[in-house]
Amino acid sequence: MPGGGVQGSAESYDALWESLLPVGRDPATCGYHRFAYSAAELACREWFIAAAGQRDLEVETDRNGNLWAWWTGPWGGAAEGDALVVGSHLDSVRDGGAFDGPLGVISAFAAIDLLRVRGHVPRRPVAVAAFAEEEGARFGVACAGSRLATGALDPDRASGLRDESGTTLAEAMSAAGFDPSRLGRDDERVTRIGAFVELHVEQGRGLVDIGAPVGLASGIWPHGRYRFTFSGAANHAGTTLMEDRRDPVQAWSRTAVAAATAARAREARATFGRLEVHPNSTNAIPSHVRGWLDARAADEQALQRLLDDVRGAAEDYAQQTGTSVDVATESFSPAVVFDVPLRERIAAALETSGSGPTPVLATAAGHDAGVLSAAGVPTAMLFVRNPTGVSHSPAEYAERGDCLAGVAALTRTLEALAC
Amino acid sequence: MPGGGVQGSAESYDALWESLLPVGRDPATCGYHRFAYSAAELACREWFIAAAGQRDLEVETDRNGNLWAWWTGPWGGAAEGDALVVGSHLDSVRDGGAFDGPLGVISAFAAIDLLRVRGHVPRRPVAVAAFAEEEGARFGVACAGSRLATGALDPDRASGLRDESGTTLAEAMSAAGFDPSRLGRDDERVTRIGAFVELHVEQGRGLVDIGAPVGLASGIWPHGRYRFTFSGAANHAGTTLMEDRRDPVQAWSRTAVAAATAARAREARATFGRLEVHPNSTNAIPSHVRGWLDARAADEQALQRLLDDVRGAAEDYAQQTGTSVDVATESFSPAVVFDVPLRERIAAALETSGSGPTPVLATAAGHDAGVLSAAGVPTAMLFVRNPTGVSHSPAEYAERGDCLAGVAALTRTLEALAC
Repeated sequence: MPGGGVQGSAESYDALWESLLPVGRDPATCGYHRFAYSAAELACREWFIAAAGQRDLEVETDRNGNLWAWWTGPWGGAAEGDALVVGSHLDSVRDGGAFDGPLGVISAFAAIDLLRVRGHVPRRPVAVAAFAEEEGARFGVACAGSRLATGALDPDRASGLRDESGTTLAEAMSAAGFDPSRLGRDDERVTRIGAFVELHVEQGRGLVDIGAPVGLASGIWPHGRYRFTFSGAANHAGTTLMEDRRDPVQAWSRTAVAAATAARAREARATFGRLEVHPNSTNAIPSHVRGWLDARAADEQALQRLLDDVRGAAEDYAQQTGTSVDVATESFSPAVVFDVPLRERIAAALETSGSGPTPVLATAAGHDAGVLSAAGVPTAMLFVRNPTGVSHSPAEYAERGDCLAGVAALTRTLEALAC
Repeated sequence: MPGGGVQGSAESYDALWESLLPVGRDPATCGYHRFAYSAAELACREWFIAAAGQRDLEVETDRNGNLWAWWTGPWGGAAEGDALVVGSHLDSVRDGGAFDGPLGVISAFAAIDLLRVRGHVPRRPVAVAAFAEEEGARFGVACAGSRLATGALDPDRASGLRDESGTTLAEAMSAAGFDPSRLGRDDERVTRIGAFVELHVEQGRGLVDIGAPVGLASGIWPHGRYRFTFSGAANHAGTTLMEDRRDPVQAWSRTAVAAATAARAREARATFGRLEVHPNSTNAIPSHVRGWLDARAADEQALQRLLDDVRGAAEDYAQQTGTSVDVATESFSPAVVFDVPLRERIAAALETSGSGPTPVLATAAGHDAGVLSAAGVPTAMLFVRNPTGVSHSPAEYAERGDCLAGVAALTRTLEALAC
């Protein structure tokens, strides 16, 4: 048995799963709060290091806080384009689910265990990766770890990103023992990745509708985050005549309704899930309301039209309510089309295992796989069926049998690509 | 000169004003953050004690945290119903203005200074009062200090009220050196108040429209605070189809629009100025939205109709969006009609000063004067013109000349009632 007693079977999946499950879980909601560089997320990192240690995998944390566990020895042994990387992330949204991220990391370790039990030895360097701050839940920029590594996120901008309490990413990294002065583009590392495969719980019901436990991703919808700031005039909630008000809540509320209507009409997605109201007192008309629009559509033109709809509505409603609105783009992720030859190789490997053709679907969720793909790394994603489609919620769930089917598919993928 | 160098003139008003102005002011917004028992509010109490000390007024803090400064010696000298109390409060809403509360306390001290300069000696005990937690900005219950004293607020409920960080009122009082076990109905004190006169900046443009610097209040509109909790289902903002969502933001937004429409139609006031969104992440459909409705109307029947309108809209929109809504009454303040004989005595006193009849207006803002009036204390209010009508905002303002007219009116009132 490899690495001191790790079972190469469902048992290793179960043991990995059970050991990570309590970390950062809110007992009240059973949701997870694993914000980048928080105590809970640092405990997830300890878990990763321990899991790698049990398997004699060599662990390193790169300049951007991403974790790597190498099957075949240290990074130095890999030439350009020869490494196969599998993994996902360990951080969560606020009050998120157990599967989004961790399932990909756990499945990667479990797949290596299975290959070892079967006596496989890799022909190329293989790493399990856990990327930092994928959700952007603490510092507001999703996939910060992979974006920094590929140069898509400027390290000075990243260092200065602040969480809700005003702590910067640089401060949070320093407090956790990392050196933020080393943040930045990591070409040496990225160019050595010959392929990246991310397994992830599906965030929708595509596989439920098809009736398949595992699928392959075709690509990712383009995605933008836009900050709408409505400014009015603070005033007394009791004494100010309704017709004298310049109430940004009224402008924002109408905009939120218009956004949902526009998204339905365009078969796209628009969500105002985050709000800040100032001063946020029951007896004061607010002076400012900030709402963050998360918008996604099947292509970039459709996304632009959706944004135009919402921005136009916001400007109209601001005018009608005597307020003003400012719209700032916080992030934009272009459409991603995953590497077709890589996907076809994986599909062929899975088909030979006798499970029939693997369905291929697009997703509207962002992933580190999308960031690496945009940087030119051949990239693929495997999805595991989500019976309710719910994610980013304590109710996020996948059946154990489907998760083990995911481990089997990832094992077959590693076998085909690296053994 | 009385009390060691305090000028009985505009100078004493100016000195009092200037010395309080910097306390608890946010340099970024120039708004005030004087939350009950916070460092800033404790500094306001120190200011009160120092101002009273400069005037040889005897200071006491009552069981409920209200401050009293006695012109004629300690409370023990007053029989039932013989004390004349003037004052207001020193706490603020979040990011509030400089005038709301402090103007009444400062004017009271300045009026005593003027009377002393003129050689007046009071025939009855006179006190300047500053009531605790008038705004309810920290613990959610407005006029907590006066409500506790009159028995309108249960001391056990008050002790357990929590601020946003989870600190209870009892904990905050203890930390500030007060004894929360003594909170509660204070009949001995309340029954000795023969009259209470509160001077306050107007929170509307009634006096601007009339063209008068000072007015008298007829009464206060009834006022309710209602917590609307919309519950839906947290989910991924990108992958969840619009038609599959149970998004409480959508139900709440439509309700906020309906509330404003209903208030306009009923010539009443409805404000959603405070919101909590959970989990409040850009990329998650929220599971819960809480919005606090502040509703006021000219009479209680009209207020009930307004609430029925908003509640009905909320239930309809909850049903339409697959969410649910729960409505809880956080506070209800019945209509207040101030003591007519007292108002007429004050009006007569002001008219003899040659300024013509003093206008009388109702207000939709709550005050400690309303709480004392509801407890049977003969009560009156003086309003000082507010050129913009704005309050509960850093932009709240009154002209110095109008404030001095307020001091003159309060001085004339004290002279008529107590000298």
